[in-house]
Amino acid sequence: MTIQLSDLAKQVDATLSEEWDKVLIEGVGTLSSATGKQITFLSSPKYLEQAKNSKAAAIILSQDIPEITVAKLITDNPYLCWAKTAALFAPDRSEYLPDASHPSAIVHPAAVIASNIHIGPNACIGANTRIGSSSIIHAGVVIEENCNIGDNVEIHPNAVIHCGTIIGNNCVIWSNAVIGGYGFGNAKAGAKFVRIPQLGHVILEDDVDIGACTTVDRGTIENTIIRRGTKIDNQVMIAHNVEIGEDTGIAAQTGISGSTKIGDRVLIAGQAGFVGHIEIGSQSFVGAKAGISKSFPPGSKITGYPARNLMDVRRSDTAVANLPALLKRVRELEKQIKAIAGK
Amino acid sequence: MTIQLSDLAKQVDATLSEEWDKVLIEGVGTLSSATGKQITFLSSPKYLEQAKNSKAAAIILSQDIPEITVAKLITDNPYLCWAKTAALFAPDRSEYLPDASHPSAIVHPAAVIASNIHIGPNACIGANTRIGSSSIIHAGVVIEENCNIGDNVEIHPNAVIHCGTIIGNNCVIWSNAVIGGYGFGNAKAGAKFVRIPQLGHVILEDDVDIGACTTVDRGTIENTIIRRGTKIDNQVMIAHNVEIGEDTGIAAQTGISGSTKIGDRVLIAGQAGFVGHIEIGSQSFVGAKAGISKSFPPGSKITGYPARNLMDVRRSDTAVANLPALLKRVRELEKQIKAIAGK
Amino acid sequence: MTIQLSDLAKQVDATLSEEWDKVLIEGVGTLSSATGKQITFLSSPKYLEQAKNSKAAAIILSQDIPEITVAKLITDNPYLCWAKTAALFAPDRSEYLPDASHPSAIVHPAAVIASNIHIGPNACIGANTRIGSSSIIHAGVVIEENCNIGDNVEIHPNAVIHCGTIIGNNCVIWSNAVIGGYGFGNAKAGAKFVRIPQLGHVILEDDVDIGACTTVDRGTIENTIIRRGTKIDNQVMIAHNVEIGEDTGIAAQTGISGSTKIGDRVLIAGQAGFVGHIEIGSQSFVGAKAGISKSFPPGSKITGYPARNLMDVRRSDTAVANLPALLKRVRELEKQIKAIAGK
Repeated sequence: MTIQLSDLAKQVDATLSEEWDKVLIEGVGTLSSATGKQITFLSSPKYLEQAKNSKAAAIILSQDIPEITVAKLITDNPYLCWAKTAALFAPDRSEYLPDASHPSAIVHPAAVIASNIHIGPNACIGANTRIGSSSIIHAGVVIEENCNIGDNVEIHPNAVIHCGTIIGNNCVIWSNAVIGGYGFGNAKAGAKFVRIPQLGHVILEDDVDIGACTTVDRGTIENTIIRRGTKIDNQVMIAHNVEIGEDTGIAAQTGISGSTKIGDRVLIAGQAGFVGHIEIGSQSFVGAKAGISKSFPPGSKITGYPARNLMDVRRSDTAVANLPALLKRVRELEKQIKAIAGK
Repeated sequence: MTIQLSDLAKQVDATLSEEWDKVLIEGVGTLSSATGKQITFLSSPKYLEQAKNSKAAAIILSQDIPEITVAKLITDNPYLCWAKTAALFAPDRSEYLPDASHPSAIVHPAAVIASNIHIGPNACIGANTRIGSSSIIHAGVVIEENCNIGDNVEIHPNAVIHCGTIIGNNCVIWSNAVIGGYGFGNAKAGAKFVRIPQLGHVILEDDVDIGACTTVDRGTIENTIIRRGTKIDNQVMIAHNVEIGEDTGIAAQTGISGSTKIGDRVLIAGQAGFVGHIEIGSQSFVGAKAGISKSFPPGSKITGYPARNLMDVRRSDTAVANLPALLKRVRELEKQIKAIAGK
Repeated sequence: MTIQLSDLAKQVDATLSEEWDKVLIEGVGTLSSATGKQITFLSSPKYLEQAKNSKAAAIILSQDIPEITVAKLITDNPYLCWAKTAALFAPDRSEYLPDASHPSAIVHPAAVIASNIHIGPNACIGANTRIGSSSIIHAGVVIEENCNIGDNVEIHPNAVIHCGTIIGNNCVIWSNAVIGGYGFGNAKAGAKFVRIPQLGHVILEDDVDIGACTTVDRGTIENTIIRRGTKIDNQVMIAHNVEIGEDTGIAAQTGISGSTKIGDRVLIAGQAGFVGHIEIGSQSFVGAKAGISKSFPPGSKITGYPARNLMDVRRSDTAVANLPALLKRVRELEKQIKAIAGK
């Protein structure tokens, strides 16, 4: 694809000086890799030197920087502008994903499927399941009975959507994710476990993304709920009856135990773990590998294992690293006291 | 479904005062959500206040509590009674899972399949694999050659059972789990790795549950074994030659390295990790995110990273949190000593 | 299979004294389980006593040990010799995996498939995807359009290879792995997330192994790269734009965040986690559950959370375990000082 820079600027809501209107853009690159026919972006001052040396045809950035002499697209939010630019250059897969069911797809006669959706090879759609318009169900996906899938949803290959799941509009489910599986619940009969049937469902509101191999379990009695706009990375585990607020981001390999509530606009780094039945307030930040064993109020910044206030943990970590030195100081004090006392 | 409370009490082995015999139950709810046509349960005194205010038609609990005035089902083990009650209200999926192979299922002519089992769309069953009666093999499941699957086993969509795996009766394997895959073993030839063929298998005894996206690797020479009644959550990793005892419970995202042995009735919380070639004695408890690097005797209660006795870890955690304060105290002592010594 | 020991020795490059030439070997076993018709190996002196008591017909080991009186195969590298021996006894699956496409496989007419490959039931191969000779694509695998898969590659059931992925020769991808899925990238538009299209791909060079349920995300602009000979265990997460060097080994449930670079011949134990944008030098060792938040030079040995030099962490761990005792010592010092000062 080739696009004239003035057209591109319009499509991504950036300001462009007239002198660069006719520059032709054929693709995207990084500050260091972009060629003279590619566009790139500068979203952090820490890459300023790289931007000055970039061979790109054009750079998206937040203000005019005189030392940068290539075409500049100015915008308040270069990272967002980049997202829109990248979308222009994303490969068009529509040729491979026609608005039709592949002949090998197995759609139950009692499923209710919009006419303009793609259902890939070997996908299975269960009875009474509804799928909204413009959705794409890729190869090998299994959607069981009584699900309700919104409009413009994309479910990638071999993902499994268990019976009764509700998925809002514009959601994306990545490959091999499992939504609505069993919530791990067992009663004890003497020494033996007895499975507790999990009667709730999973509700994903609009604009939710679920990463590859992520598992979201159905609720025990009520539902497991992930609210609008929340984005979840790969290999995350969401247990039964968890509730996650709006616009929250959860990085890979994090686990959230049963009935825990996470607020809105929380950011959770990778490999964090939450015990069950706690609440993390909105707009909190949770550090990578944090082990969270109690509730925290809105706006908390926590990390560590066990998780505490970020600054406290940093101080303790430093103190732990200096422990062998502290031990020496105490030993020295003991010697001195002994000497003094022995006087 | 509507059921008269006297019938329900009989089916779940609970005691019911005659006055409530005719109460009609149409479903289940939590203490706070249950309506006047639903049944709920109280299994911990910590929810007593909620129970007193519950609008449920009936509550399962361990003793008569006069302040609770709705119908009461009395039982020694309310949580177990709840499991049985929930089973009564679990949706009947048999309509969607007939005792037959879907025409799209690919069953090798040399497979030995009981007559009354369900094999879902696109499932593949390999040569010489045997599947016992009343089992359900869901859509997209792949079971390779030479497996032996017991009676009343359920394998959920897109799970993979590799060649030679043995699965006992009443086991449940959840979606996208992988049983009997490669045990990670590599020899070094100079700087390069050479794969070591893994010739053992996986044996799951009766009543074992395996969560979604959990992986259980085949043994190197002998087998990886999970004994009767053990329940494993999602995204757990069981490496080659691990042996897990009976009635053990393992929460999500835990990893157990090669040749480690876990005893009977051990409880392991989420995201725990075990190095290889160690033994954890029966009836031990392992805390969330614990990193276990050595063996522990039966009845141990361990947590932390590196894992130690639970009470020791709690004490150390508190001491670590107080380290900056301790540092100040030592600094103060040094000042005082200097003053004294300088006298 | 039965093989004469002299033939076996030749095939695995081991030295055998003539007296044992005619010993017949029918299978493999461990030092303790091997019967009088099986071969086993001794690769560590710690199992010497077991070797002396072994009932095996033959033992692979690094030097003649007089107390071992059964047949001995002498080799510089017993573990590598074992890998070759095990390969001789690995079950021959070729009968179940003929050089042909199963009739249920769905191969796009514009795919370019070598003639001597196996494509299993329900596998899907996309447009313009090339697969080299002697490769095996198992049941339910989905390979999207525009991929390039080398010779002698094996992709196990239900794995997903997303569009544009490049896989070198002799690679093995295990079941339910996902290669080339979305790289988790979101810009903020006010409080809301906006997905950033991920335009790069995944490149696996030759001889790379990827474990079951492992996810390797596509790059944002440039590619995610795993170099020749690197072996990755199950449930590992490799984020966008990560680069991993040659002959590196990564154990299960490890996570590597975006743009991080791992060198050659690095060994990473299980459940380790790396933040993004750091570099770990070649020939480093990273301990289990380590949380790595900064770069480390080549040859580093690191562990802990936050990760530091292995010996420093061991010292700190011991000091932490002794903290409650240290606290007592400081308390005692304070008492003594008070007494002295009060004199």
